[in-house]
Amino acid sequence: MQSYEIIMKKRDGQELSAEEINFFIKGFTQGDIADYQASAMAMAVYFQGMNKRELADWTMAMIRSGDTIDLSEITGVTSDKHSTGGVGDKTTILLAPWIAATGVPFAKMSGRGLGHTGGTIDKLEAIPGFNPALSKEEVVRNVNEIGAAVACQTDNLVPADKKLYAIRDVTGTVESIPLIASSIMSKKIAAGTDTIVLDVETGTGAFMKTIEDAKKLAKAMVSIGTNLGRETIAVLTNMNQPLGRAVGNSIEVIEAIETLKGNGPEDVKEKAVALGSYIQVVTGKAKTASEGRQKMLDALKSGAALEKFKEMVAAQGGNPEVAGNYELLPKARYAMDITASESGYISGINGQEVGMAVKIIGAGREKKDDILDLSSGVYLEKKAGDYVDAGEKIAVLYGNDKEKMQEALNRIRSAYSYSPEKIEVLPMVHAVITKENL
Amino acid sequence: MQSYEIIMKKRDGQELSAEEINFFIKGFTQGDIADYQASAMAMAVYFQGMNKRELADWTMAMIRSGDTIDLSEITGVTSDKHSTGGVGDKTTILLAPWIAATGVPFAKMSGRGLGHTGGTIDKLEAIPGFNPALSKEEVVRNVNEIGAAVACQTDNLVPADKKLYAIRDVTGTVESIPLIASSIMSKKIAAGTDTIVLDVETGTGAFMKTIEDAKKLAKAMVSIGTNLGRETIAVLTNMNQPLGRAVGNSIEVIEAIETLKGNGPEDVKEKAVALGSYIQVVTGKAKTASEGRQKMLDALKSGAALEKFKEMVAAQGGNPEVAGNYELLPKARYAMDITASESGYISGINGQEVGMAVKIIGAGREKKDDILDLSSGVYLEKKAGDYVDAGEKIAVLYGNDKEKMQEALNRIRSAYSYSPEKIEVLPMVHAVITKENL
Repeated sequence: MQSYEIIMKKRDGQELSAEEINFFIKGFTQGDIADYQASAMAMAVYFQGMNKRELADWTMAMIRSGDTIDLSEITGVTSDKHSTGGVGDKTTILLAPWIAATGVPFAKMSGRGLGHTGGTIDKLEAIPGFNPALSKEEVVRNVNEIGAAVACQTDNLVPADKKLYAIRDVTGTVESIPLIASSIMSKKIAAGTDTIVLDVETGTGAFMKTIEDAKKLAKAMVSIGTNLGRETIAVLTNMNQPLGRAVGNSIEVIEAIETLKGNGPEDVKEKAVALGSYIQVVTGKAKTASEGRQKMLDALKSGAALEKFKEMVAAQGGNPEVAGNYELLPKARYAMDITASESGYISGINGQEVGMAVKIIGAGREKKDDILDLSSGVYLEKKAGDYVDAGEKIAVLYGNDKEKMQEALNRIRSAYSYSPEKIEVLPMVHAVITKENL
Repeated sequence: MQSYEIIMKKRDGQELSAEEINFFIKGFTQGDIADYQASAMAMAVYFQGMNKRELADWTMAMIRSGDTIDLSEITGVTSDKHSTGGVGDKTTILLAPWIAATGVPFAKMSGRGLGHTGGTIDKLEAIPGFNPALSKEEVVRNVNEIGAAVACQTDNLVPADKKLYAIRDVTGTVESIPLIASSIMSKKIAAGTDTIVLDVETGTGAFMKTIEDAKKLAKAMVSIGTNLGRETIAVLTNMNQPLGRAVGNSIEVIEAIETLKGNGPEDVKEKAVALGSYIQVVTGKAKTASEGRQKMLDALKSGAALEKFKEMVAAQGGNPEVAGNYELLPKARYAMDITASESGYISGINGQEVGMAVKIIGAGREKKDDILDLSSGVYLEKKAGDYVDAGEKIAVLYGNDKEKMQEALNRIRSAYSYSPEKIEVLPMVHAVITKENL
């Protein structure tokens, strides 16, 4: 088998066999197939796509390139959730204990963030003592004992994806739906849970800009999960502004806790309930999403979700008192008001711009080794649909460097857009993809 | 400017600016743009193509990557000819002196062959003493004095093409018409002649398998030449069997000389006359192809072309007596008859197979440093359209290694195809592309 012949086959729109896909991915991981062949293949896939069989084989070949985590010692049907990534997305922080509170084991291997703000792991590290570096045995023990664990990936999961992504990033081949789908799903499947619920975001702040592309990606991922024996559901959510009001690390933890107390922003609660209700379905704990929804709302109302949050924090070495005392979290020295540049209804808040702004003040990483300022961030007091007068306060910026804060402030100010007419705020969920409607 | 943004622009079907193309080719030549970016770009070009403006700019950027030859000291409008390459193609050997005999200066920089048989340079080296390693000054002097020179490229012409081709070869991106066209034309233009006539072959033995693709390639090349100030005409020729009867090195020189004497195979003569008549047109020596044709036929009939051949050989240090005494050329030790495997009309001879066969006996190179056996080859006594009985002699194989010859013999035998009905042999030329019919 010659690697260039496999590239040509894909280039010409022919279906690749499992053998050819394995040969290519294995050869690439081992360095027998050159980077310039992998980038040409990625571009050929960009144009020709992959069918469902190829997608499953490609993903499986990627998984085989490294370690996989065996969570079979966990009792019950385990669940995990993945989001394609949005600014202000603190869903995992509240969803992990909330799901555990409904009796579904939740085991999440999260990455650190390289982007606007820190990832879930970074945010949780704002809690004094919290230790995300759990071994597989500790994850199994914690999930069996209290129902949830959020740990950072330490194993060598899917090295082929790391290598391929580094090349895709500089060769214009990131935006390929089969490559995105297999990248995400290979890591989720290697991480070992029985079921997966995917949050696919669409809109200005999201990776997928159109509903059409988001649907294609969701279908590709659900098809991969189904073909590789993992029950998978994708929930398509709207993302035309950051999720919730807090964007940062410390302040996102506060917002997550507030939501568990029943005081959080409606969109934060709604996303967690929506994803959670499908986790109930995918793990077989509910027959319908509305039945799952009721279980979620019950666990919130009873205070069980909040209690589980404290348990989870304590089990990972963190101080559970944080739930009652936010002074325990890192706090910024300065606060600056951001005011509306014009009068009108807020029609949207560009999440990408807000993300770039908080990165300037240290809430996100530029390079892999950057140390985060966990205390900095922005609190968006006014959001899409609100009416404001020019000069009215719309947000508060928190940080430790006044000069950089001024730059971030200007950027956030112009991330807001206005309309003279009242705008309709889109519902959180606009479609759900299951194996039945692929 | 970011290299991956240029790749994405091409990927998305947008037109690249001259500045972007220059940045990419220059960066790639210098090593600032990685091989994996070049291969992704090549694949994007494979799918999205290039318009005429981009093609000219891309070719110019390639030319700028290295040296160019200045032939302005040659008196008159200089001409060159390029063939996309065919088995048994000895056209340059006879065309160079023949064109010179009509008064048109002909300066050809040829490569050595890496393929079925040697290239023009290798074939000419079968002549005792012949020296193809002329300096630019010697080429200018020879063309000014006798009208023709065939030299091997020594300058660092178009290094970007060498580098890019090496990558295209192993990434499934050879078969891109804009990349083939710019590769050929960059080298032709860098070689310095005022005008170029291109022989674009179509058929089983040719690089372009379909007339449609051959036409696209021809149009792309003529467009490049025209946009970069070189009068260019492409002649589309049929190639469903090797050209002439001789395939090898020594024996192709003999066939070329025989053609100059008026005794060569009709197809060898016809291709040289056809290309030569368009060289007359492109250099302004004839108003029409038929006027050019008459000049060519006159130079053959008068014996001027044969005399010029001897002059050219002598001017490059070779023994001109070779024209009268073929014993001066390397001669193989053994000859083996090849017989027809069945009765019928020969419907075609697969040139690629014949080429691979003579490579086995040393007439062509496998690797760049292989030393050729200039005496080996095959003489095809029967060609398409001929009727033969099973067991009748169809060809004679010449070589020095009986074992390898047996292998080559079997391969050539099965390169012949037969038909019960008389077949129509296609005309040599089936279309001509000029700047007027792009």
